[in-house]
Amino acid sequence: MNIKNIAIVGGTHGNEYTGVYLIRKLRINQFQEKWNGLNIDLLIGNPKAYEKCVRFIDHDLNRSFGKKDLTDFELPGYEANRAKVISQKIDSPKTDFIIDLHTTSANMGVSIILVNDNIYNFKMASYIKSKIPNCHIYYIPTESYAEHHFLNTLSPYGFALEVGPIPNGIVRHDIFNQTSNTINVALEFINMTNSGENPEINGAIEVFKHRKVVEFPKDKEGNINAIIHENLQDKDYQPLKKGDPIFSTLEGEIVTFEEDEILYPVFINAAAYYYKNIAFSLTEKVSVDIKENLAKIMKWNNKS
Amino acid sequence: MNIKNIAIVGGTHGNEYTGVYLIRKLRINQFQEKWNGLNIDLLIGNPKAYEKCVRFIDHDLNRSFGKKDLTDFELPGYEANRAKVISQKIDSPKTDFIIDLHTTSANMGVSIILVNDNIYNFKMASYIKSKIPNCHIYYIPTESYAEHHFLNTLSPYGFALEVGPIPNGIVRHDIFNQTSNTINVALEFINMTNSGENPEINGAIEVFKHRKVVEFPKDKEGNINAIIHENLQDKDYQPLKKGDPIFSTLEGEIVTFEEDEILYPVFINAAAYYYKNIAFSLTEKVSVDIKENLAKIMKWNNKS
Repeated sequence: MNIKNIAIVGGTHGNEYTGVYLIRKLRINQFQEKWNGLNIDLLIGNPKAYEKCVRFIDHDLNRSFGKKDLTDFELPGYEANRAKVISQKIDSPKTDFIIDLHTTSANMGVSIILVNDNIYNFKMASYIKSKIPNCHIYYIPTESYAEHHFLNTLSPYGFALEVGPIPNGIVRHDIFNQTSNTINVALEFINMTNSGENPEINGAIEVFKHRKVVEFPKDKEGNINAIIHENLQDKDYQPLKKGDPIFSTLEGEIVTFEEDEILYPVFINAAAYYYKNIAFSLTEKVSVDIKENLAKIMKWNNKS
Repeated sequence: MNIKNIAIVGGTHGNEYTGVYLIRKLRINQFQEKWNGLNIDLLIGNPKAYEKCVRFIDHDLNRSFGKKDLTDFELPGYEANRAKVISQKIDSPKTDFIIDLHTTSANMGVSIILVNDNIYNFKMASYIKSKIPNCHIYYIPTESYAEHHFLNTLSPYGFALEVGPIPNGIVRHDIFNQTSNTINVALEFINMTNSGENPEINGAIEVFKHRKVVEFPKDKEGNINAIIHENLQDKDYQPLKKGDPIFSTLEGEIVTFEEDEILYPVFINAAAYYYKNIAFSLTEKVSVDIKENLAKIMKWNNKS
């Protein structure tokens, strides 16, 4: 296992400034020299959306990397073309590893998002979790969506880094430093495994596996007419059980959680998803055995 | 003094959702009936910008109410026209009092923004401050700008309500409730003064008077190349003195505050002002004597 060519992408969503500023800082500070032996490409994902401080121009860039879309040269939108350009850049030289930098207005701390079940990625995520406080691993398996469209699917190794809470369109020292530190720990892990070292990691790790999204209640005209309930706001990765309040409607009613099993919400009240009417996503907590050669994902034994 | 016609405006900036949701809630809940005797108009300021989740379409609506602009019927932009429509609505029936609802990503708590020196407004602000925790009075006197362009200039009485911190494009229970409570206290004050009651208020109140804006450091290409220093982030309304760090540049340098007098920053790291390169605004703390018939504004005796 030798990872040589690495891409770090900031501003895949144009209103998530942290990644863009960090890429600019790394370019100024001869970041490459610090990681001698690694070939690190620093990219701005969606420069046009960044200029306008919007998530995207025509279509979410981080949903534009489906194999079918990448080979459809008639797709007209800005991001449909931008995805092909990024894919070309990732292909030559062949990039082994991608870190795609994101932020969210949800209280998600440092979230390592994995989109495949390569054991190397889980091991790295476990290593990062041991070094970075407030870190969670969020796993979106392929079967969750008909086809993955994420930038990270361009390479077998890597992760999307989601850090929050932070408003769109600003940079904060704390979120900036957490993002920067996480990159450093990931590169440290790559350097260790490249040189044959076996970093000490836990045998079984806690992973939040994506299940589904939950929409806001809407009125007859289709407008969102509820607010995230105060008991749920900022409680990402905390257990949600039957009867817990999740929304307060504008009519003054309380809506409660009605699933029989305990699930774990993420992306609670994320600004990014209002345009899709999405209030939060639900995950199940699972244990991943990373001593095995292939990640073995087991149902978490809920005690809460 | 009798205030009868009142306008409450939400969504003057389209990505500040709190006001829009609150207006919708008040419309559902027969808000008018609760305040018998007051004629309350509930308006959405910029519906097109709200639909697109942007601050404005062509031009900041809350900078579109200058007298010259309101009589220039050739101005082409959406907001130039919207301002005339709102102005017409405020004129008939003649509205005495406007509350213009805003939110900010800066840590400004509940800020009552006054744009003229009507003693009634200062008295109300003082009353609100006595009832609402974490409330500050921010005064932008006419001489601060060549000409005021704010929606609030359409009426002699009222205030802009700025509540934060909250990201653009979401609603949170806490900011929502603070906004709603402040409106109730303002209407309570109006009801009291309308019926001849003299609400008990302090004789002298602490007011933050606008002085100037401070821009981010920029690189040669004109890009912002600094982050608000961690000592300054979230420290709105707290004293800033010579030598205090205010920025960390991407090159790794610390920029310090170099004014000789103690000033009080507001709108620190507000997402709304990045497009103008504005990092924060500076105010001086003054004492306003509201026992006098005309507001007497004195230099605050800085002890910090």
